Amino acid sequence: MSGGNQNSTKQIGKQSVCFQNPPYILSAGNIVGKKEGQGPLAEFFDIILEDDLAGKKTWEEAESEIMNQATAKALEKADLKSKDIRFLVGGDLLGQLIATSFGVAGYEIPHIGIYGACSTMGEAMAVAAMLVDGGFAERTIAVTSSHFAGAEKQFRFPLDYGNQRPKTASWTVTGSGAVVIGSEASRKQTDLNFRITEATIGKIMDYGIKDSMNMGAAMAPAACDTIACHLSDFNREPDYYDKIITGDLGSVGKEILLELLKAKGYDISSVYMDCGIEIYDSESQDTHSGGSGCGCSAVTLTGYVFKQMSEGVWNRVLFVPTGALLSTVSFNEGNAVPGIAHAVVIRNSNG
Amino acid sequence: MSGGNQNSTKQIGKQSVCFQNPPYILSAGNIVGKKEGQGPLAEFFDIILEDDLAGKKTWEEAESEIMNQATAKALEKADLKSKDIRFLVGGDLLGQLIATSFGVAGYEIPHIGIYGACSTMGEAMAVAAMLVDGGFAERTIAVTSSHFAGAEKQFRFPLDYGNQRPKTASWTVTGSGAVVIGSEASRKQTDLNFRITEATIGKIMDYGIKDSMNMGAAMAPAACDTIACHLSDFNREPDYYDKIITGDLGSVGKEILLELLKAKGYDISSVYMDCGIEIYDSESQDTHSGGSGCGCSAVTLTGYVFKQMSEGVWNRVLFVPTGALLSTVSFNEGNAVPGIAHAVVIRNSNG
Repeated sequence: MSGGNQNSTKQIGKQSVCFQNPPYILSAGNIVGKKEGQGPLAEFFDIILEDDLAGKKTWEEAESEIMNQATAKALEKADLKSKDIRFLVGGDLLGQLIATSFGVAGYEIPHIGIYGACSTMGEAMAVAAMLVDGGFAERTIAVTSSHFAGAEKQFRFPLDYGNQRPKTASWTVTGSGAVVIGSEASRKQTDLNFRITEATIGKIMDYGIKDSMNMGAAMAPAACDTIACHLSDFNREPDYYDKIITGDLGSVGKEILLELLKAKGYDISSVYMDCGIEIYDSESQDTHSGGSGCGCSAVTLTGYVFKQMSEGVWNRVLFVPTGALLSTVSFNEGNAVPGIAHAVVIRNSNG
Repeated sequence: MSGGNQNSTKQIGKQSVCFQNPPYILSAGNIVGKKEGQGPLAEFFDIILEDDLAGKKTWEEAESEIMNQATAKALEKADLKSKDIRFLVGGDLLGQLIATSFGVAGYEIPHIGIYGACSTMGEAMAVAAMLVDGGFAERTIAVTSSHFAGAEKQFRFPLDYGNQRPKTASWTVTGSGAVVIGSEASRKQTDLNFRITEATIGKIMDYGIKDSMNMGAAMAPAACDTIACHLSDFNREPDYYDKIITGDLGSVGKEILLELLKAKGYDISSVYMDCGIEIYDSESQDTHSGGSGCGCSAVTLTGYVFKQMSEGVWNRVLFVPTGALLSTVSFNEGNAVPGIAHAVVIRNSNG
């Protein structure tokens, strides 16, 4: 059924959108924990914590604080005040999004809370860009965070318990990344020069994975589905992109994704990168399958990826944060962990 | 700072939007639990459960099932299949939105998970309408749910514990409501004839309320802020609306809201209604302050309110679901419960 909407050129294929006036990424800010600041991407981060409590008394308050700081940094870089932002679109992994609620309340920006597990940065950027291109906002902020200690405490074991981690386990990134997204008219010459041109909203994929220590396997089918739908919706081959970047599949999920996509006729191996694999040195940092969490893709994008794009090394990037819809309640009741992934196309305007 | 966006007529005042081609509500579906089916609004619900487990083994699975059924009912009434829906925008109160993830995964509709506590239905409808008016979707579904037993278990005490409830406590509604929102071109003559014409996105308001048994007091300042901003953004008086309808302030929150708004110069008492007060008979149903939960406003809107609008009793409604951003983690760590409220204007096209 087609309704003949006058804007139907914005609706592509089954689940993708193409922006009419592609919004700009005006600025980005990020902050990471001590461990991430000792990893291979250290030089690309704005702020590195010396203490993962960030001067607070609890891990949850620390996560709120880092989201606050990432947001402040993004605003500062674009020389904007919170009143210049019409909507903040953000979320985190904690129950009821408390890191976000407490982290950004002080900005008094009209708030759209979202949840897509570790895919949240993709969801946030896609929604924030649709609100700008739809004409509902001049500028929005998309922001997410995660915190290793808070996430382990909530989803697995408190750190003090000292449990063993299997090789399939990933390491939740302590970090937060924020991007200011605005219309062409809102861009200043000193701002970043990237545009969000297309997006593909993912479906919930449940492949029956029941191991909370193997999130890569839970998320890989969702990443496969979203990437394959994206390429199909736009009739593109993988090498159309300089990089196809998943959020936090890690080394286990990566192999599954490449296999699954091959079975669908897509070989993305030559352009593929996973933020979770890049952010730690797996040899020296004992992070097993790699980094994960809402913060993982957010800080890698706003740090490493944006740097490569600024330098023209990459000009067309498909950013696909991946989420495992894990909850201790459903998990303890024996349910599987469904996955979801959202894709956002970011282009260098100079490229 | 104004950016001169060509769509700037869609941006009203500080935090409101005005739709250019106001999306239609094409259909709505709802389902409630046994207790809600014994209350004063019983005749307005599509499905009333005989057993709140809905044939499932856990409360969480039951909540997923009712969301599934509300969505199915909304699709059925508009004679649509899931493939006719471009995006589903939905959420619930449980950690990591598991009621939603498991409830709607089977539809395979591209998924935008959102969280605004009990304000979620307002957030869902506002976002879903922006995506339609922005040209990114012909049709979307906005859906939320809550379940008394699942919510009590998560946020307060398991039911078996038999704790006493103070008079300020509200009773989480077991129920789910879904609306299909579409462009004018997508509407059939047999569909509902309501339009979403404006929306106001709320800010996070923290007044320091620390009593999880008094959510009305936590949410009232947010409801006040959103309603006052809405009236100010559009330069309207309360009697512009036939009804101003909050989600679940209950009898305690209602009094606070009316006082707070009076202090800002707005007397809404003659047009005011709260879904939480309407859904139960406080005398005979022992629900104390009233109903609450994401499902409360969703089923009251799609049941009672839409019936009044269909019959032309009300033609202009300001629907303001109210959310308490309560999490057991932050609550047990001594933090307050911030509130948020989002407002959506629904008009009878015939009116």
